[in-house]
Amino acid sequence: MELTDCTASELSARIAARAVSCEEVMAAFLDRIERLDGTHGAIVALRDADALLDEARVADAALRRDGPVGWLHGIPHGVKDLADARSLPTTFGSPLFVDNVPAADSLHVARIRAAGAIIVGKTNVPEFGLGSQTYNRVHGTTRNARDPALTAGGSSGGAAVALATGMLPAADGSDMMGSLRNPAAFNGIVGFRPSQGRVPSVPTADGFYQQLAVNGPLGRSVEDVVRMLCTMAGPDRRFPLGSADPLPPPESFRPRPLEGLRIGWLGDLSGHLATEPGVLDCCTNALAELASLGCVVEEDLPDFDLAELWACWLVLRHFGVLRHHGLHEDPAKRAELKPELCWEIEQGLALSAQDVVDAGATRTRWFDALTRLFDGRDLLALPAAQVFPFPAEQHWPEVVGGRAMDTYHRWMEVTIPATLAGAPALSLPAGCDDRGRPMGLQVIGRPGEDRAVLEFALAWERALPGRVALPSTLG
Amino acid sequence: MELTDCTASELSARIAARAVSCEEVMAAFLDRIERLDGTHGAIVALRDADALLDEARVADAALRRDGPVGWLHGIPHGVKDLADARSLPTTFGSPLFVDNVPAADSLHVARIRAAGAIIVGKTNVPEFGLGSQTYNRVHGTTRNARDPALTAGGSSGGAAVALATGMLPAADGSDMMGSLRNPAAFNGIVGFRPSQGRVPSVPTADGFYQQLAVNGPLGRSVEDVVRMLCTMAGPDRRFPLGSADPLPPPESFRPRPLEGLRIGWLGDLSGHLATEPGVLDCCTNALAELASLGCVVEEDLPDFDLAELWACWLVLRHFGVLRHHGLHEDPAKRAELKPELCWEIEQGLALSAQDVVDAGATRTRWFDALTRLFDGRDLLALPAAQVFPFPAEQHWPEVVGGRAMDTYHRWMEVTIPATLAGAPALSLPAGCDDRGRPMGLQVIGRPGEDRAVLEFALAWERALPGRVALPSTLG
Repeated sequence: MELTDCTASELSARIAARAVSCEEVMAAFLDRIERLDGTHGAIVALRDADALLDEARVADAALRRDGPVGWLHGIPHGVKDLADARSLPTTFGSPLFVDNVPAADSLHVARIRAAGAIIVGKTNVPEFGLGSQTYNRVHGTTRNARDPALTAGGSSGGAAVALATGMLPAADGSDMMGSLRNPAAFNGIVGFRPSQGRVPSVPTADGFYQQLAVNGPLGRSVEDVVRMLCTMAGPDRRFPLGSADPLPPPESFRPRPLEGLRIGWLGDLSGHLATEPGVLDCCTNALAELASLGCVVEEDLPDFDLAELWACWLVLRHFGVLRHHGLHEDPAKRAELKPELCWEIEQGLALSAQDVVDAGATRTRWFDALTRLFDGRDLLALPAAQVFPFPAEQHWPEVVGGRAMDTYHRWMEVTIPATLAGAPALSLPAGCDDRGRPMGLQVIGRPGEDRAVLEFALAWERALPGRVALPSTLG
Repeated sequence: MELTDCTASELSARIAARAVSCEEVMAAFLDRIERLDGTHGAIVALRDADALLDEARVADAALRRDGPVGWLHGIPHGVKDLADARSLPTTFGSPLFVDNVPAADSLHVARIRAAGAIIVGKTNVPEFGLGSQTYNRVHGTTRNARDPALTAGGSSGGAAVALATGMLPAADGSDMMGSLRNPAAFNGIVGFRPSQGRVPSVPTADGFYQQLAVNGPLGRSVEDVVRMLCTMAGPDRRFPLGSADPLPPPESFRPRPLEGLRIGWLGDLSGHLATEPGVLDCCTNALAELASLGCVVEEDLPDFDLAELWACWLVLRHFGVLRHHGLHEDPAKRAELKPELCWEIEQGLALSAQDVVDAGATRTRWFDALTRLFDGRDLLALPAAQVFPFPAEQHWPEVVGGRAMDTYHRWMEVTIPATLAGAPALSLPAGCDDRGRPMGLQVIGRPGEDRAVLEFALAWERALPGRVALPSTLG
């Protein structure tokens, strides 16, 4: 098997066994980046090849001397361009930050580096991560792994495309409105939004009230996602709302028996969500496979006013984006912001504290309504996206399933049930439509129970291998 | 020793050993309530004596048959009138809620009941818990345990007075701006504000954004506080921001060696806090005792703009109180609200979402500043209150140490450092001034490290017994 077809876990085993050197691994991925990234535009701030090969040789020497420092020893890794990797610019995809070079890693990046990864560069994002479509005026557009004419999705678009095309074996991401789930679905890989608090956000401008975005893993296998999550997660005293219980080591994650596993299928929330024809079919086909493996799949619907949930989302999202208001206040800077960001901030500036209080109450009732569904289910399922990947030039789908979208992000509404509950949510490949466009099945667990979701997915991967296509099949 | 002089732990041991019956215990406390509560006004919604004695006899029968159901088996307990105890009115001290009888216990009350406690009634509070002074138009004024001419403090004022006077051996409370710490200090007992998330708030109107108030224990000994905390604490799936790590059993809490323990004394925050003469002396005397036991006490000061911290507090407190805005919207109801509540709501209604975002950022920087102090300290100390108990007829101290107070709660500013950091904070008796008015030493731990604070306090209690006076010495 070509090195660039391997998962990170496979490379990890081969490096630890000295079946391959870190230098060979790095050379293979650099070659692949060289050949493909001109088309896909997934990786930004790529470090100098000689420096990377030097670092790989140092890793080889350390390996010979002391053995691997961690499971990522010598593995090339890309950091999402919303997080900090020391000495590389964090641009957020904004022209205002092209010279923003942090002195230190974000905590989850430091943990990935401490596990032995070699940070090769950053992965592209939408400006400030807004909108599940990866384009910006600093680094351009990231194009889909399966078809460069199509969008990568986002906001972890660069990460997902780098993984799916075999340009990188490892990458991190983050998710507010599906940014780990949507690009995984659009590029046929695995993405996982952890429970709120699982991966501490350090540094953070607001560790108390900004409760929508979380950092998390993507991968070319469930096993990789489990291992990357365990690397990124764990308590840190600097994060006030972090989960205090460390995850067990990845080796202790075991495939969960599928026989009798109860999955509640929420579909399009009884017609509340607009969906492109074919999306629900991909998901129900994936669920039929799970049913054939013994899962009990039944339709479900939360007892909640979903229009009210959307209104709550808008308030809390505007509230979250208001942290960028300083840029908007300065007319010179405002001129450099994309219109969707200005809209978010302007909507946010019109909100009262009372609006936030009311949205918090709605969010709490939603948490109750969603968690009550788990009294009768082990997992819940939804589509990971409401549309298939659309043309890369299109900023967002203005019409979905014949219904006009009233905001630039309404077409990703399917991601908010998990986000607002702080629940763990996985996107698993759910096949393609007849035009070869990928879709994902979103599998949601009870808040805090990341392990239950991932152990299900390990069983899925064992029972249905090969659902993540090898990069070499893409060319 | 008289039964009403015993701590809850002592009563628990005597009941379990059948040295005393639950009925005898109940009768002794009911007698004490009968004799004293006309003066102190600590207990409201007191249940019928015959019903309580019946319940105690049922507890005795269960004890004979099956042994104790928990450490609180047969122990009389008072529930703060901001929490729900089924079948008893939850009035919040407001005339608008005199007929509000919940069908179910709040979670922490259910846990206390499940540990065997007999709920005898509710303990008095300021209206909606606002202001560390316990008076309201439903149940009147609660008067200090040491001197009925003085305030009980608050908002867990009824609970603290019931404990300190020996009318109850067990009571719970809650704390936003010192409501577990201030009344403990004013009545010479122990109060503990747990880390944020330690005791889940169920039910709650907002489990995500209301992050100032927490439920917690008070007691006549540190041991009682440890046991009550362990009873109240622990994860619950219905509380989204709860700490996922359960506390170890109370038996595993051990006095912590005092030798070499580093305590940072924050004093009056370098003159930022107004204090009544004598307050700091009580605290430094208590610290001198600790130093004589081997603690290393050094002065400390956080690197932070404390005026900015106060401004942040005002915003977040108004934001928190806005959950009552529905009452304020209705003119008929508004007429029944105390003016301080109306002021909080009116200030809150004038706040923008941006104000809350900015306050969240300030709070996060404060969390960083406070936690950095723990790099060189095991614990931090402050006064538990800025004034001694004042006349019960006075709503709040308008002048403290010669400085005018600009809000009804400015005199409790000393409690906000711990609250805003979500840190555990204990109030220990720190002796009295020459007029016999009690003061407390506030001891703050690193956020999440409740155990470290309590194990220090267990050592304090062992080394310096008798600091909580026996109720019988009060008459």
